[in-house]
Order: sequence, then structure tokens, then C-alpha cells
Amino acid sequence: MKRNIYLDNKPLDEAKAIWHQALADAGFFDRRPEQKIAVDDCLGRILARPVFALRSSPSYNAAAMDGIAVHFLDLANASESNPVRLGRARFTPVNTGNAIPEGCNAVVMIEDVHYLSDDEVELILPATPWQHVRTIGEDIVATELILPEGHQVRPIDQGAMLATGVTELWVQCPPKAIAIPTGSELIQPGQVGQPGQIIEFNSRILAGYLNEWGAVARRSAPIPDDPLKLKEAILAAVADNDIVILNAGASAGTRDYTSQVLAEVGKVIVHGVAIKPGKPVILAIVGAVPVIGLPGYPVSAVLTMRLFLRDMITAFLGREKITPPEVEATISRPFHSHMGVDEFVRVTLGRVGDILMATPVGKGAGAVMSLVRADGLLTIGAGKEGIGAGEKVAIELLRPQAEVDATLVCIGSHDNILDLLANQLHTERPLIRISSAHVGSMGGIMAIKRGEAHLAGTHLLDEATGEYNVAYIKRFLANIPLQLINLCYREQGLLVARGNPKNIQGFGDIAEHGHLFINRQGGAGTRLLTDKCLADLKIGRERIQGYQREEYTHMSVAAAIASGSADTGMGIRAAAVALDLDFVPVAEERYDLIIPKKFLHDDKITRVLHLIRTNQAFQQRILALGGYELRDSGKVMYEQG
Amino acid sequence: MKRNIYLDNKPLDEAKAIWHQALADAGFFDRRPEQKIAVDDCLGRILARPVFALRSSPSYNAAAMDGIAVHFLDLANASESNPVRLGRARFTPVNTGNAIPEGCNAVVMIEDVHYLSDDEVELILPATPWQHVRTIGEDIVATELILPEGHQVRPIDQGAMLATGVTELWVQCPPKAIAIPTGSELIQPGQVGQPGQIIEFNSRILAGYLNEWGAVARRSAPIPDDPLKLKEAILAAVADNDIVILNAGASAGTRDYTSQVLAEVGKVIVHGVAIKPGKPVILAIVGAVPVIGLPGYPVSAVLTMRLFLRDMITAFLGREKITPPEVEATISRPFHSHMGVDEFVRVTLGRVGDILMATPVGKGAGAVMSLVRADGLLTIGAGKEGIGAGEKVAIELLRPQAEVDATLVCIGSHDNILDLLANQLHTERPLIRISSAHVGSMGGIMAIKRGEAHLAGTHLLDEATGEYNVAYIKRFLANIPLQLINLCYREQGLLVARGNPKNIQGFGDIAEHGHLFINRQGGAGTRLLTDKCLADLKIGRERIQGYQREEYTHMSVAAAIASGSADTGMGIRAAAVALDLDFVPVAEERYDLIIPKKFLHDDKITRVLHLIRTNQAFQQRILALGGYELRDSGKVMYEQG
Repeated sequence: MKRNIYLDNKPLDEAKAIWHQALADAGFFDRRPEQKIAVDDCLGRILARPVFALRSSPSYNAAAMDGIAVHFLDLANASESNPVRLGRARFTPVNTGNAIPEGCNAVVMIEDVHYLSDDEVELILPATPWQHVRTIGEDIVATELILPEGHQVRPIDQGAMLATGVTELWVQCPPKAIAIPTGSELIQPGQVGQPGQIIEFNSRILAGYLNEWGAVARRSAPIPDDPLKLKEAILAAVADNDIVILNAGASAGTRDYTSQVLAEVGKVIVHGVAIKPGKPVILAIVGAVPVIGLPGYPVSAVLTMRLFLRDMITAFLGREKITPPEVEATISRPFHSHMGVDEFVRVTLGRVGDILMATPVGKGAGAVMSLVRADGLLTIGAGKEGIGAGEKVAIELLRPQAEVDATLVCIGSHDNILDLLANQLHTERPLIRISSAHVGSMGGIMAIKRGEAHLAGTHLLDEATGEYNVAYIKRFLANIPLQLINLCYREQGLLVARGNPKNIQGFGDIAEHGHLFINRQGGAGTRLLTDKCLADLKIGRERIQGYQREEYTHMSVAAAIASGSADTGMGIRAAAVALDLDFVPVAEERYDLIIPKKFLHDDKITRVLHLIRTNQAFQQRILALGGYELRDSGKVMYEQG
Repeated sequence: MKRNIYLDNKPLDEAKAIWHQALADAGFFDRRPEQKIAVDDCLGRILARPVFALRSSPSYNAAAMDGIAVHFLDLANASESNPVRLGRARFTPVNTGNAIPEGCNAVVMIEDVHYLSDDEVELILPATPWQHVRTIGEDIVATELILPEGHQVRPIDQGAMLATGVTELWVQCPPKAIAIPTGSELIQPGQVGQPGQIIEFNSRILAGYLNEWGAVARRSAPIPDDPLKLKEAILAAVADNDIVILNAGASAGTRDYTSQVLAEVGKVIVHGVAIKPGKPVILAIVGAVPVIGLPGYPVSAVLTMRLFLRDMITAFLGREKITPPEVEATISRPFHSHMGVDEFVRVTLGRVGDILMATPVGKGAGAVMSLVRADGLLTIGAGKEGIGAGEKVAIELLRPQAEVDATLVCIGSHDNILDLLANQLHTERPLIRISSAHVGSMGGIMAIKRGEAHLAGTHLLDEATGEYNVAYIKRFLANIPLQLINLCYREQGLLVARGNPKNIQGFGDIAEHGHLFINRQGGAGTRLLTDKCLADLKIGRERIQGYQREEYTHMSVAAAIASGSADTGMGIRAAAVALDLDFVPVAEERYDLIIPKKFLHDDKITRVLHLIRTNQAFQQRILALGGYELRDSGKVMYEQG
């Protein structure tokens, strides 16, 4: 089969309008299926018809107090000076909720009743007609409206319906949806894959969101890359669903038959939209059922379904469009986008002082973790080429605002202890999360300078003094009152495969034997350490094969070595321990936290300091990572301002 | 058994503190049961333990583009003037996601590949190492933290776990709760009760809220009023639950054994709290299980459980306390409360112009509809005697803010058409609701004067001119630009039992034969009509038995007559039709809507006017109610300013 070129590159608004019209033409918005169910089963459902009271509530005249039921005229002249005595024939003891007996029309509450005997009472206050009586229909009268059509049922509504004799009601049927994964490379969770095989998790993500938005979504087994099987699956799915989602197969790869198959069995309305990510989305109608082909990358699939499916479901249900909550934030670093394309950028958010900072979490659309970590979505319109640092932007929130506001923003050097800290803080106070951006020690110092971070991890050696961090702070952060607090000492060294099969003992070996190196990014303390080692040994960078290949974390370097795509790289011992690599020690270094004084009394920071200073279980967990030394942990190494 | 007096009248804060301590002593907050479940089943669950990646993702070096895999060194010198040709041995076609073959370390995307034949390609650009390759662990490296303890799982999180080889995880077990209704008077929904019997719906309401707050709640069958059976039920419940709720039996009625029984089998921590409603709540510990006796009235039960149970559940789960959303609103009319008691007042809310108005919806705690209709809760502290009209107060929202903001506030005379309007508007736009307060025609005019309503229904006859409404507007609303728009003409008359068994033909009969009358409240147009009839006939009010008994709506008057608690009352024909009563016509009257001009272009108002002016199906539904005439419906009867 020939490689398939995108049919369109439709602007988003145009694609949405065309699609909406196609759905309207197919009668998608007019179906409104409904079903009759028991009130006991209707919590959270949406009423398809209004509910009217079948009976009045109360349905009888009921005592509103514990006391006695009387005829009010019997007490007409009662007073302290003229107590009225009633015999058992003229009063009836009642509890709250009891029916008022025939001939009675008022209740005297127990506190005002003086029992002379079980059969005689004395009363000193007159009564008014129907006092302390809940009369029939006081709450609601038969035939009155209890709940309007379109209302979503709450527990109290169930009570009101049952109280007025309603036991069944008509509710909307949510749209039935199915998520069909396609691709011969897919294996199920729990199976161990060969290279090229992919665990099928997208359909779970898609079905999860469809359910969250109000559909009832199922998943099908994966369909292999075979146009006939795909066709069969689509035809079976449209016969039994209101919405069909195909996942993968929307791009232009050799095995992507989806759009041809859809054109055969139905009508492709749009194939290719000017959005990033998500360009290759397919919007089609088969019979009268919308079939949406989502791109294969999970991030593309999720963002695309938010654009096209969320509103479809609310419209099917006749509900108001969901307006996702937005906040205004300041972009921390410039982000370039393409003219002519609506670009959707995942960002992390953090409130540092008075400013809500948004930081793009780059990486490809395949990176599911980037969406797990994202706090919000930034849309850059087709008419813009990007966003400049410091620019104010509207961000669609992906987490509750309270969580965003309680985020501890940690920008700087990467260390595995930060994962432990993040988990421990979240356990203690679930609202608090740590948002950590691994931009290296220098990046952290610059973030503190710009007021974008609560704290920065740093391990910058000043060669002149042999001391860590202080010289850099004096040079770049001279005007900022801060404390420099030690987190740990840690071992840096060369990570090598288990057993060190290439017998790498230092940079000399790497240069001499042409071993494949993997480097850290510029500005990282570990990069500076590498460069210092090379300078000390007078080895030129050009002699280190792979010097140009940069990673952002110790764990990424370790992963490259574990997978064999590099022979060695500089990193901390904890990364070697985590991935069962061998480790050739090079240096012990000091890793400190820079904390501006204005944040020292922030609840999040005090918790961090309390943890590292006093929590021995936490310290044990750090030591178990390997390569750490905590002799100064929590100690103020330097202070200014 | 002797009547039981409340043990306590504890201030709320003190009761909460004592209860919290008792729960802590019983180890309630430390249980944290957890269970291991499949990732596929964990949506919305809360992690009991952190989740770390078992495998890196991607788990192999994968093509990030469709194209060909190559060794980057082969293209070192490629350029437009020096195209490089590669035979089939030096390249491998790959689709996005394919594994990079052994010996390759870069991908050239399909757009840059010139196929000379199936087996030979020509390339004119150099490649960098690992370009267009998603290297192992690019997204996340094995052993890294994916999700912290305490995190609530979203669909994207499921994807991330499955992508990194995690198929099972430890989640928190929500507290098991049971709601036990007590009372021999209880019958099940669907059963038709005798006077004194009550449909058991409270346990449904309670279980619904418990589930909403994170518990897993069941309901038990009602327990009759028998201390032994109650004791058995409590002991069985505590053996199998983390939280036990008893409903009713918390008050001081003759059959309220709950507190004695609880004192026998466990420890009563608090019985009686200085709150209104909800005073007779019982907080007890049996074994190590909290047992809460909630008052029997549904409104008291719900408000009390919000005070004592919501935080218990979140604490059990180790989650942050829920801070319910609050708004600031202005109280529309004074509300008196009791010193020494924390009082919880249900209010309706409506944004009229710039002001968010809160109006208490009084009525007793038995009125489940008052909670259905409530938009918010006002707490009046124990130290206050009430709230003055116009005072600013904090209101806890019971509905989403967007719904509150989209509420059409209609204050004034009651008419059954308002129910139809409310339903129709809500159907067209689910956010829009009508909040209607039935305070009579004069009350409506005053609400317009104070800027508290979008519209007011009114039918006030000026005896001097014989005209409706205009004279009152000129007198009370002279400075407000407004339109007076007709809604309908309607028949007023005497409602009497079907067949008119007492042969009531007018007020003369009522006065002469001492028939029991039921009146409308002062300020109601229907009250004025009654008074005019009496004046015309020169019948003194004292001659009408029941003249002092006031109801606020036509339907309440009709309900009283239908139930036999009154013989007759003045009301509209639609109310008679609804409850199958007979009707003795007295007058046709005009019912108009007063709408300030500043709201005439408000979307909600234009929808109302559109409906009554042009929607024939809607007009038919009005006529079907009985007694209406629509010849001027939607017509502007008077305009000023």
C-alpha cells in the first residue's frame, strides 16, 4: 500500500465547525436516548424529564414536636392564673412525626405539659390552630415541580423524590463509546515485549477520560494492522455505539490504513488539522456514528480528544459546554511555536511569592510522564510564533487551583533525593507537591535570581577556592537575602555496565579506546566536573566520542548505559545503584539548597527543612539510595542579607 | 421507659474537639487499610504507597518519526552537492515506534529520503547521533518515582504506570460505613403509608453523601423501636464497619432509646450540641468504631453529618480537609437566630446586577425541599442574635458558582406558570435556574425597589381605577425604569372539595355556616382580593373562621383543602385542577411581570420573553393547567423611564 499523505491541514476553528455541522447532519445531537430507572439507582444521573411530586409531603398532618395533640379551642383561655386541665379524651401524647389524631389541630410541646397523671395534663398557655404541626403539603404539594429536566441528581434530590412518592424516573442515557486500539505491535500490560512491541495502555487512558466526561466507554482488544480486520471492527463498533475511537493508525506510516478504510465504509470529514500535537487526527462519520481516529502518541491522543470529544459528549447530553478553569501565569522561559499551527504546550505551574510561574515541560508527544507532571495547558494560537519569557498567558488548569498554589517549585540540579522529598511531603500533606525542573546548578541559580523558584539544588565547585556554591552565589545572587543549606554530600563517578566489561577506570581510558561517552547538559554541575577532569588530564573534548550527546538527569545517563547506547558517563552513585550499574568513583561533592530568606517560613520549606534535619527514617531512606553522606544535612553553610 | 433529657448542649467547637480526641484515642485515624489492585481498576483511587517505574519508557530505542534508520557516521559528509547513496544493508525503513536496528543510531525522516529503488536511497543531509530516536528511558527511567503516596489516580496516570511495567498497585481502602434507619413507623418507597407512617428515604440521602465524601456506604433495613433489636443491630454493624450511622432516635421522644443503648454497649462522647438544626446528635464509640446518631429530620441529619462526618472521612483517608467553596453575599431580609447556638440557615442565591443576594429559605428541618432548593448555607455563630437585611455574609456554596451566577431571581406573587418556566429554561440551558421566592405581589415590588430581583410577578388591583399593578408601580417604583409585561389573565375563586359537599358559593356562606377558611399571607394579591370581597360584602374578618391561618402559595391552600384541614380558600383555578378540587369563580385578574429595563437584555430575561411570546407548545402547556387566558401574554402593558 502506498504511503498516505495528509489530506488536510485545516485550521482548528474550521475543522471544529465542519465537524460540528457533520455531527448535526448525522443527527448526533438529537438522539437523547432515555431510560426509566429506580430512584435508588439514579444518583449522579441527568433527568431526561422533569419530576413532579406524586404525593404531598408531609402526606398527613404530623406532629412537629414531641408533646401532646389537642384542639386549640380547648386552651383558648389557658393562662398561668387559669390553668386548663385536660383528661385523656381531650389530648393524645405524640412524638415528632406522629399523625395528629382526628379532632385535634395543635400540638403542645412536652416542655409546656404538666402531667398530673398519665391520664390528665395541666396547661397554662393558649394554643393557635395548627401550631407545631407540619400540615399536609407543607414541604411540597402533589403535582408541584421537584426537579427540572437536565438536573443532575444529588442525594438530597433522591430523598425529595422518595418523600413525594416518586420511585422511578426518566434519566438520560450517556453516549456509548468504544476505544479501539490498532497496531500489530501492541501487547497487553504484564506481557514482556520485544523491542518494537508496545504495551497497549492508550485505550485505558482514552476510556478513562471518556467516562470522566460523561460517556460509558468500553475498550476493545487491539486490532492488528490489517485493513480487512480494521474494517470489520469499525462496522461492528458503529452498530453498537454512539461514538467510536480508533487509536493509532492516523499518521502516515506504511501501515496506517485507517483513513482509507474509513473512506470506504463512511465519510472522512477531516483528516489533518493544523494543531501540534495532534495533526493527523481523522474525523469521520460511518452510518450516522462519529468515528474519530486519534494519533498514536498518548499525549497527542489525549490533547486531541480534549479538543474534539469533550464538547461532543456534553452536547449529546444536552448539557452546557464545560469551561475548564483558567489562570493567568507568567512564562518562565521563551517558547517557540510554529506560525499557522495552534500549539498546545504542557506546563508546570508554581506560585512563587505573588507570581504564578508557568514552565513548559517540553519533550515529545510520546512522553506520557510529561502529561502526568503537567499542571496546565498553554495554547499558542496559529498567529503567534511563540511566547517570550515574562509574558503573561492564560493557562487551562489540569489540577485543582489549591494544589497548584501549594506546589513547591524546585529548579536546578537534579538529585534522586528530590523524589524522596516529593513523596514524603505529599504523604504528609496531600496538597503539597514538588515541581522540580532539572536545568542544572547554574539554571537553578538563575531561577532564584529571577524569583521563579522556592529553592534550587546546586553543586558548583569554585576551582579557585575549592569550595562549593558560595562563590557563584556571591557573583550572581549578591542582592538576594538567602541561606545556603546543605542537603548531602554525594559520590560522583563514571557509571559503567555491571562488571565494568570495558574496564573503564578514567577519562584516559575513554579517550584512548574510543569508548562511547554520554554527557550532561551545559550548566550542570556534573558537566563542570567532567570538564574539570578533562582539563586536569589535558584531554581535548574532541577526543571523547559522544561528548556532544547531552542528557538532563543522572538517571537518563544511567539508563543510556544500562541499555548499551553508551559505555559510560558521569553521574552519582545512587543512579548506578538504582539501575544496577558499576561505579568508578571520581569525587565527593557537596550538594546544597539555595533558599531565599523570604521563603524560609513558608510552610512547604519548613517541612522540607524539618524532614532533612530531624526525620531519621527519612535519612535512612536517603542512605539506602547509595553514595550519600549526611554529616552536614540541614546545616546552614552560608548566609547573606 | 422514662423520657430522656439531653445530656449536653455543648458548644460546637468543644463538641468537635472532644469528638476528635475520642476518635484519635480509638485509633480511627491510624487504620489506613490498603489493598493491592490492578492498574486497570484503580481510576479515582488514592495511592497507599508511592509508585516507581519498574521498566524504563521507552523500553527500547524507538523511531520517533516514519523514515529510515541509519548509522549517523554514514551521512557525515552528505550535502546537496555530495548526495550519499545507501544500499539496503546500510538502512532499514522504520515507522514511528519501531525499534532501531542493531548498528543504527539515527533516523532520517521520510520527507528527507529520496528512494532510488526499494533497495537504495539518496540522502543530502548529515545526521546527528540519535536524531529522531526516542532513546530508552527518555520519558522515565526505571526506579524513578511516577506517583507519590496519597495521589488520586487519573486516566493519564494509569497510562504512565502501564507504560513502565506497573500492573498492580497499593491503594487505600475507603472507610466502610453503614446507615441504619430506626423507627417502627418506617415503610419502604413504593409502599402506601397510613397516617403516621413515613417513607424511609433518609438512609438513601445519608449513604449518598457518605459515598460522595469517599466512604463506601451501605444501608440496612430499618430497625423497629425495640432496644434489644437496636442493640443487636449496633453490635453487628460495628463488627463489620469503620463508621456506623443511626438515623432518628436521637431526640427525646418516648421511643428514643438510642443514647441509652449506646451507653450500654459503648461510650457516649457527646449527646446534644448547641447547633440548630441538629441539636440532638449523638457521638459515641462502640468498641473502637464511631457510631453517630443523627436526628430524624432529613435537613438536620444532612447538616449534622456535614459537620461531623465529612472531615472524619477525609482524615481516615489521610487527605486534606475539604474546604467548601464560599462566596460573599448580601442578606435580603433580616434573620433572627438564637444566642448560644450555631445556626445553619439554608439560603437561595442570585446575582442581580452586581450584587449576590442571599435569601433564607425558612421552614422546618423536616422540609427536604428546602435543601433541594438551597444554593448555599449561612452559618450564624453562637455569639450573634441574627443578621440584618443588607448585611454581608459568607455563604458556603451548595451548587457550582456558575449555576448560582446564572440564576434568574424571581420574587413576588406565586403562579404555577413559574414552575413551567423554570423547567423549560433549565431544559434549554441547564445552567439557568429560576429561584422564585413567593412573598406576594407587594413583596415582589419591594424586592424590585431594593434591586434584589430580576423580575417580580404581581397582580395588585387598584380599586380606584380598576386597573392592575400600574398604580402601585407609580407609587413605589417611580424612579426605576422598567417595563410591565403581561404573563396571563387567570381565574381566581374559592377552592372547595370535589363536588363542593358543603355547597360553598361565596364568603356569605363561609361566614354564615362557620366553614373553615384558609388564608394567604399579608401582601399577597390574593389576600387583597379576599379582603376586597369581604369589604364589598361588608363581612367582618372576625366572622371568617381560619382567617388568621396563612399560607404562601396557591398550592398550599389547595393542599389544605384537599386534606380536609380547611373547607375553602381563595386561589387560582390551576391549583384546583392540579389537586382535583372544585372551583367557585370569583374574578378574572391580570398577572404581570415587572422587569427593570437594565435586565431586559439579560440572556435569561430575553429567553423568558421569547418563550411566552412565541413558543406555542409552551403556551399550550400553560393552557392545559386550567384557568388561564393568554390574549396579552408578552405584551408591554406599561413602561416608564
